[in-house]
Amino acid sequence: MTYRAATIASVGAAARTEEYAAPELEPGAALLHTLFAEVCGTDVHLRDGRLAGVPYPLIPGHVAVGVIAAHRGVLRDIHGQAFNDGDVVTFLDVHETCNNCYECLVTKQTTRCPHRKVYGITYGAHDGLLGGWSEAIWMKPGVKLLRMPQGVEPAAFIGGGCGLVTAVHAMDRAEIKLGQSVVVLGAGPVGQSIVALSSLSGAGDVIAIGGPQNRLSFAQRMGATATIGLEMPPAERAAIVRERTRGRGADVVIEASGAPDAVSQALDLVRDGGRVVVCGQYTDRGATSINPHLQINKKHVEIRGCWGSDYSHFYRALELVARFGSKVPWRELAVKHYPLDEANDALDAVASQEVIKAIITPNL
Amino acid sequence: MTYRAATIASVGAAARTEEYAAPELEPGAALLHTLFAEVCGTDVHLRDGRLAGVPYPLIPGHVAVGVIAAHRGVLRDIHGQAFNDGDVVTFLDVHETCNNCYECLVTKQTTRCPHRKVYGITYGAHDGLLGGWSEAIWMKPGVKLLRMPQGVEPAAFIGGGCGLVTAVHAMDRAEIKLGQSVVVLGAGPVGQSIVALSSLSGAGDVIAIGGPQNRLSFAQRMGATATIGLEMPPAERAAIVRERTRGRGADVVIEASGAPDAVSQALDLVRDGGRVVVCGQYTDRGATSINPHLQINKKHVEIRGCWGSDYSHFYRALELVARFGSKVPWRELAVKHYPLDEANDALDAVASQEVIKAIITPNL
Amino acid sequence: MTYRAATIASVGAAARTEEYAAPELEPGAALLHTLFAEVCGTDVHLRDGRLAGVPYPLIPGHVAVGVIAAHRGVLRDIHGQAFNDGDVVTFLDVHETCNNCYECLVTKQTTRCPHRKVYGITYGAHDGLLGGWSEAIWMKPGVKLLRMPQGVEPAAFIGGGCGLVTAVHAMDRAEIKLGQSVVVLGAGPVGQSIVALSSLSGAGDVIAIGGPQNRLSFAQRMGATATIGLEMPPAERAAIVRERTRGRGADVVIEASGAPDAVSQALDLVRDGGRVVVCGQYTDRGATSINPHLQINKKHVEIRGCWGSDYSHFYRALELVARFGSKVPWRELAVKHYPLDEANDALDAVASQEVIKAIITPNL
Amino acid sequence: MTYRAATIASVGAAARTEEYAAPELEPGAALLHTLFAEVCGTDVHLRDGRLAGVPYPLIPGHVAVGVIAAHRGVLRDIHGQAFNDGDVVTFLDVHETCNNCYECLVTKQTTRCPHRKVYGITYGAHDGLLGGWSEAIWMKPGVKLLRMPQGVEPAAFIGGGCGLVTAVHAMDRAEIKLGQSVVVLGAGPVGQSIVALSSLSGAGDVIAIGGPQNRLSFAQRMGATATIGLEMPPAERAAIVRERTRGRGADVVIEASGAPDAVSQALDLVRDGGRVVVCGQYTDRGATSINPHLQINKKHVEIRGCWGSDYSHFYRALELVARFGSKVPWRELAVKHYPLDEANDALDAVASQEVIKAIITPNL
Repeated sequence: MTYRAATIASVGAAARTEEYAAPELEPGAALLHTLFAEVCGTDVHLRDGRLAGVPYPLIPGHVAVGVIAAHRGVLRDIHGQAFNDGDVVTFLDVHETCNNCYECLVTKQTTRCPHRKVYGITYGAHDGLLGGWSEAIWMKPGVKLLRMPQGVEPAAFIGGGCGLVTAVHAMDRAEIKLGQSVVVLGAGPVGQSIVALSSLSGAGDVIAIGGPQNRLSFAQRMGATATIGLEMPPAERAAIVRERTRGRGADVVIEASGAPDAVSQALDLVRDGGRVVVCGQYTDRGATSINPHLQINKKHVEIRGCWGSDYSHFYRALELVARFGSKVPWRELAVKHYPLDEANDALDAVASQEVIKAIITPNL
Repeated sequence: MTYRAATIASVGAAARTEEYAAPELEPGAALLHTLFAEVCGTDVHLRDGRLAGVPYPLIPGHVAVGVIAAHRGVLRDIHGQAFNDGDVVTFLDVHETCNNCYECLVTKQTTRCPHRKVYGITYGAHDGLLGGWSEAIWMKPGVKLLRMPQGVEPAAFIGGGCGLVTAVHAMDRAEIKLGQSVVVLGAGPVGQSIVALSSLSGAGDVIAIGGPQNRLSFAQRMGATATIGLEMPPAERAAIVRERTRGRGADVVIEASGAPDAVSQALDLVRDGGRVVVCGQYTDRGATSINPHLQINKKHVEIRGCWGSDYSHFYRALELVARFGSKVPWRELAVKHYPLDEANDALDAVASQEVIKAIITPNL
Repeated sequence: MTYRAATIASVGAAARTEEYAAPELEPGAALLHTLFAEVCGTDVHLRDGRLAGVPYPLIPGHVAVGVIAAHRGVLRDIHGQAFNDGDVVTFLDVHETCNNCYECLVTKQTTRCPHRKVYGITYGAHDGLLGGWSEAIWMKPGVKLLRMPQGVEPAAFIGGGCGLVTAVHAMDRAEIKLGQSVVVLGAGPVGQSIVALSSLSGAGDVIAIGGPQNRLSFAQRMGATATIGLEMPPAERAAIVRERTRGRGADVVIEASGAPDAVSQALDLVRDGGRVVVCGQYTDRGATSINPHLQINKKHVEIRGCWGSDYSHFYRALELVARFGSKVPWRELAVKHYPLDEANDALDAVASQEVIKAIITPNL
Repeated sequence: MTYRAATIASVGAAARTEEYAAPELEPGAALLHTLFAEVCGTDVHLRDGRLAGVPYPLIPGHVAVGVIAAHRGVLRDIHGQAFNDGDVVTFLDVHETCNNCYECLVTKQTTRCPHRKVYGITYGAHDGLLGGWSEAIWMKPGVKLLRMPQGVEPAAFIGGGCGLVTAVHAMDRAEIKLGQSVVVLGAGPVGQSIVALSSLSGAGDVIAIGGPQNRLSFAQRMGATATIGLEMPPAERAAIVRERTRGRGADVVIEASGAPDAVSQALDLVRDGGRVVVCGQYTDRGATSINPHLQINKKHVEIRGCWGSDYSHFYRALELVARFGSKVPWRELAVKHYPLDEANDALDAVASQEVIKAIITPNL
């Protein structure tokens, strides 16, 4: 038995469909037949070689939804309920968080365990069918499966996808209070979900800054009360934010753009004593210039980095889609679906910002 | 009746002793006869013109201790006890915090009220005897006086002075947990008190980085468990901190140096998920370069600016000297006392780092 | 010139309309012509003598909306904008918070200043027109006026009234995270607004427990996802909450009922490691029995008292009505309006729970 | 090969020494030769049957220090360093925290995992040599071993023992700020370590309330600045605390006594807006009466339950003994050592409060 998977052979190589042998399932393992796997900005970085330590050849696709096709032994969800073949599930892409190191046990930095491995990113094709752009995905023992909650359509969850999960974590770090003003920098998948979650949290004003125009329009559907395009110079953007906040700046600014200068701009946009969350800097794109007197010390501001996501963010993301999926157009974040053989087209569409997000449907 | 006060006429001018008429006391006002007034780094900046919006001519000296020589009406401390002539007091140098603006009432940024005035900094000599380098200081109605607690020698409190008060605020922002490792950048008056307060807070390792050597030696007396001089390149300093923290970096790094690059270095010294407090950037000395991916986002770190101080920090500083004054050599932070006519020598001694802090004794 | 005001002469006395001389306005003072004044549970307690230290005779009505009829000197809002005659305003009912005591300055307990006075509660009729059940209300110098924001109808704000303001404070204490389950105990004005604000905050499940049925029905309009009546025994209520939370109890329980036993019940309803906010115990109605092992220690739970409100809660309440007033039926919380002479009917309607809230319209 | 272990056969039975077969070590397992095992209040409760769900017969002793006598496979500490036979270690008494349930993964209540098992408490003698009152203790695979840090004498660590570890957790919950006043209720092993850690944290006043007199005297050696005996009525104790805190009550009160009424008393002793930590209620000793209006709501107080301890508390306890062991007389908390055959004498000495803590030395 073999499965087909889109594979990036090396940095810069186009994705090609390859055949892989089905894994032998050890006790505690399972096999998913993939329904949807996402194509996100990280995948473009992977193709372009902007992440360190990636074991090419690679089967990309870190967040996916599938159907359990086989499993060995009893696998249970966190409520103790057993999984059965046929169940529709997603899974925590981060595996092997060790629960035995200083970060796991003492500082409790759940996303900074040095032993963690990530499906589709730090597991390579030589390790097996461990990426979502594949007809089947091998759930190694210990991978944390999550059942789609009642009422959650897989296509809506995958529309939110890793951006939604990251956004849940960013919201925890942002601690927005009811009625506070929020600026979101970046209108990609992460920024879109942050806009939606800020709005659901009762933020007072939710200003999305980014581009291009179709993304800003979509941000309004996600709950943005105002949008500002990048064609406007940063000083003018800041002037608009100040005007909307009585000259003070926003209570909370969340950076989800990936551009180093956005961090410096965030500090210009936040009010005295406000909070900046930095969750968009997933690859090393260089440095930015910050004036510590004017932008940090005198402002008495708080800045919080936000790395990755843990099980709780996946779990709560599913719960949020179950509760608010009818209000928030997550499904429409990813309208373009691609078969395996068109994975390159999907990557190009994401890279060119033609789409906000693309979806691979390996079994359609 | 007149009083003599050391006055800086304009940017760059030497301090000269001038005569000023005694103020007429309105109800709620008082007059202090000055015992000790401090000379801190801010005063050097004032002479050199590195602060904006200073109304020269200026009588410097924002933190001082004096004896109530006269008062009008009943003045009470926060416990309701009346002040009497002869009482030894200090006072909150920040006046006119309005308790009526957005910062005071809504965001509760107690040090960011735009209406605040500071004795010796934003009050000028034309406003009256409103600086500590004077035989007498005019306590305007509403200025918050604080009685020296029993057992606190004025010379010990003024040794800590504004640096101690700033350090109390920085400790609130740092939230050090028992046993955590702390790095303090800067060995001036603020850094020295942060070292002492970190040690009193039960920090596990307290590493002071700064210079010159006499300051580092003093930091050890304040409680530093290790010191590193600036003659060592930043990368080697970081290597030492990592070695002392099992390769991880410090739990908390507190920047109290004033050098913009120290903020970037602080981010290199802190562990994943740790905290950086920035309280040393009191004047605009330019920008630093920060890599948001490596230094903020991936580290999942928290950075907190810390501006100024409010009444609680003064009050608690006095309580801390009352409780711990016998253990911590605050008094010896300022061994050199200068009469009014030698205020320039005091400034020079501070500017050249010959002393950590200088004290003006206008009535000796 | 005189004004009519409904007055409670002594404990248990019926409200009677009396005539009072217009106040002479000192600089900084103003006179409001009352549009709406509320009748809340506290007013029933005042009539029945369940609050200590009330200086009868009393003009009740602590939260009100009015039009500035006269003022002396320049009065400004927190943004610096001057008030004019004709402006529609409300005001912080708490006055004389001293900004000079241990609570104000050191522990920063903004609602625990011992010097605070409250319009309609701790100011008596002998002090002047200092309650809302009056044709005119005297704004003493220093009283903090708040302008109705654009788009806020006075009737909607007064519908929320003091219950909404208290709810804003309770939400700060509750720190609900997106998607968390919330139980609200009590379906009076405070509970209703807590339901609404929980829903606006993105809570996942918002269960209102209280009565009578009309209030529970209203709670659903405010955003409750489920309601439970008090006719059901506490153990059965707890069973329902557990069933809706996979056997675990709610993430956050907010007590807004005033019944001492509700605090003990709240501890039974909250999950391990969850949070209970106690904001309904405004008068001393006796003790409850709590098992510290089972209900506090082993549950690892957090309990937070929440007393009164400060300026920020008023300010933010107005902002929230401005932003969400079209979604939340605050106006309909108080559909029954009463002229001054029918103040007793209003009290009776509140006491009998015939209405959730009553409004006095002294000038209609 | 057999080992001797003191065993409680059933509720109320005296401890008797029994012989047990040595365990066969699976991969990841180890065998400790016991140096010291503690006798704490929980052990008295176990003998007296005051804990539910205990699988008698039982080998008590949840915290112990031993020497690795044998192990199978490579066992590593959290820094990755392998353990060797001959290493002196302690171990986290809580085992089988699942890292796979709602509490572990979503609410992150590290001490509330329902799957946890505790050596000497919820493992019974039928499960094997899983208690410290034994010549040897079986470290099952996955038990988290901790190496004695350099400079830590086992006798000093075991003197602190489970009380110290609990105290570290309680301090995390208490978040004492430098200079704050602390009241500690209870002068047993937990209370003693809380006194010491409060003092090390820079608390301003540390008042121990408890008994008998020898424990209060010891509390002074641990850092208490004042002690109050239980022979004084609660109202007088409260008067003393108020007198020492200018009439306000303590900033933080930590209950470590186990008496239900102590929780109510704690609420009387804390200042408005202060914090109460409840960590002493380890068995169900019934209810207490609390007035929610006077003791919670109006006080605007915060109450935090604190259950058990996790790996971080053990790890940090060891680090604290390494750093502060020379200043704090933990070793003298447990001066009486008993051989296995005298385990009943040890229990009696603890039950009668003749000693603060007793130690079993099975191999002496």
